[in-house]
Amino acid sequence: MADTKPYVLNSREVQRATLEWLGKRGVTTRHIAELVHYLQAPYFPDLTLEECEQHVLAVLGKREVQNAVLTGIQLDILAEEGKLMPPLQDMVKHDEALYGIDEVLALSIVNVYGSIGFTNFGYIDKQKPGILVKLNDKSDGETHTFLDDIVGAIASAAASRMAHRKQEEKENGNGLPSD
Amino acid sequence: MADTKPYVLNSREVQRATLEWLGKRGVTTRHIAELVHYLQAPYFPDLTLEECEQHVLAVLGKREVQNAVLTGIQLDILAEEGKLMPPLQDMVKHDEALYGIDEVLALSIVNVYGSIGFTNFGYIDKQKPGILVKLNDKSDGETHTFLDDIVGAIASAAASRMAHRKQEEKENGNGLPSD
Amino acid sequence: MADTKPYVLNSREVQRATLEWLGKRGVTTRHIAELVHYLQAPYFPDLTLEECEQHVLAVLGKREVQNAVLTGIQLDILAEEGKLMPPLQDMVKHDEALYGIDEVLALSIVNVYGSIGFTNFGYIDKQKPGILVKLNDKSDGETHTFLDDIVGAIASAAASRMAHRKQEEKENGNGLPSD
Amino acid sequence: MADTKPYVLNSREVQRATLEWLGKRGVTTRHIAELVHYLQAPYFPDLTLEECEQHVLAVLGKREVQNAVLTGIQLDILAEEGKLMPPLQDMVKHDEALYGIDEVLALSIVNVYGSIGFTNFGYIDKQKPGILVKLNDKSDGETHTFLDDIVGAIASAAASRMAHRKQEEKENGNGLPSD
Repeated sequence: MADTKPYVLNSREVQRATLEWLGKRGVTTRHIAELVHYLQAPYFPDLTLEECEQHVLAVLGKREVQNAVLTGIQLDILAEEGKLMPPLQDMVKHDEALYGIDEVLALSIVNVYGSIGFTNFGYIDKQKPGILVKLNDKSDGETHTFLDDIVGAIASAAASRMAHRKQEEKENGNGLPSD
Repeated sequence: MADTKPYVLNSREVQRATLEWLGKRGVTTRHIAELVHYLQAPYFPDLTLEECEQHVLAVLGKREVQNAVLTGIQLDILAEEGKLMPPLQDMVKHDEALYGIDEVLALSIVNVYGSIGFTNFGYIDKQKPGILVKLNDKSDGETHTFLDDIVGAIASAAASRMAHRKQEEKENGNGLPSD
Repeated sequence: MADTKPYVLNSREVQRATLEWLGKRGVTTRHIAELVHYLQAPYFPDLTLEECEQHVLAVLGKREVQNAVLTGIQLDILAEEGKLMPPLQDMVKHDEALYGIDEVLALSIVNVYGSIGFTNFGYIDKQKPGILVKLNDKSDGETHTFLDDIVGAIASAAASRMAHRKQEEKENGNGLPSD
Repeated sequence: MADTKPYVLNSREVQRATLEWLGKRGVTTRHIAELVHYLQAPYFPDLTLEECEQHVLAVLGKREVQNAVLTGIQLDILAEEGKLMPPLQDMVKHDEALYGIDEVLALSIVNVYGSIGFTNFGYIDKQKPGILVKLNDKSDGETHTFLDDIVGAIASAAASRMAHRKQEEKENGNGLPSD
């Protein structure tokens, strides 16, 4: 009887839940903005955290991104609570090296802003600046097998978005394209 | 204290679990072989179900494929039991049109045998021959949001594998490449 | 000495060239709109070609899409003129079954609007409605190995964009979400 | 009348051409093996270059990989000779930041060995060890816009292949899985 009312998607609710779940798992849009700044400051010396955060929010407004965030965090929580079926439980809990579904979800985020984000995603995932250190610390009993890749992917997508916008500004903004 | 023993991946157990879970959800390797036959019989009139099933088994032997199968079925079962957090619960339960993580997992399966499988995946997913009809029947209360895409992806990957092997046989097998 | 002036990207020129090259190869935005209509009319009975064409133009405004279109058409033209190096010349000219770089470029287009377009891409590529028949006709000496997949991918991406917008309209437009 | 003889793919010729073209562009399998060693030596201290090279050769034996190598090198050569149509000529010649088709081809290589290679690909592309420095040196007039990404992708795929094989050996080889 659960389904007597027809299902109607509420996109605002999906967006709200995405930000809420990120927050509950210890990740703010400011944390992700810091990763974008880490990636892009070498190319844009005047870059502010505020500008980075705007791009992060725009990325988080995409349904494809929201779907990946919600699905990944759900799997992390279930693994943390020991509720996945073996052997999936062990693979997610231990961030098993040959389990790559976390990277698969991450790539679906990067893809939305095109292939130029692939490199940043791999780089930040290896370097683990900022919030990524904390998400990879296994000592606190939390499981962030999906979330650390997802956060890196959102930052990479935001960096790609910024690169596209900066080019637009250069061409349109002041009539004086710099070289 | 659950983790005092170091975690050691057991690949045979992952493979066994993959076939077991598929079976519990109503899908046999023969069902998937029938989809491969549907896709490839027009090009190879003598194709047998046995040969198709060998390619399906080879695809199911890949770790990347096993990971996608186990993760997808886990999410289906949780949605069926109403155990996902809203709004993810609603999106997976209703196979929401704008929720594309099922396709994302499916593509990760197809990719292992290369891009030539993309077309078959989309085609079979629209046509829904064989077991795919049953998996899409919502009237029985079961949720197969992920599994129907995953089964189509395994069949497409097996068809790609077959195409590669048939070409090898043509070049090596009898010294008489057919046109 | 060709490069004494620093290179400055001109995005408007890239966009203009994309539409021009499509036209020179026999494909108009109206042709692609017809494919979108073929895919989406079953779900939206009042759908007009004009609305479909607007989504096609939006897809063609994306740099990632323009890059794939220009690269694919360039390879088609070179194959047509016999100017690629063997064995690439033969593989592209004959749209060799095991050569999947055309599908790889096509997927990079579909990805920009998310995974929900994968299915449409495979479906349309098999069914070959409208302009896709002509692009696959090898009898006229033209080579469209890349273009036929690219055109199908643009149509699929436009259909995905439409699905997202229709949902937004349903939620925001009139306060009366239809079922 | 050019096509009176039916086209018959010769896979050995495709493989031979792949290695030949890599060599003509200054890249040996040993160069790529060095990149694999750079990525994997931290995890396997006894790793030899010979073992790395075996994995590189296996990756280069895949048709999907050969297709990407041949297509990418062809585009590099045409850009070097100034034979692409504007604006594609400028974008490839200058490795334009918003032109991502080189990354798209690279990902199609990485994908063949699964998603666990994405991270290595991005990392090596930023760090540019070994042969990648030379391929990125624009001062010699050569254009390697595609090849540098492709070489990094082959190395990442080989590292993924190694990770899978090492796990198999651990489980099967001596009956005594190490921790």
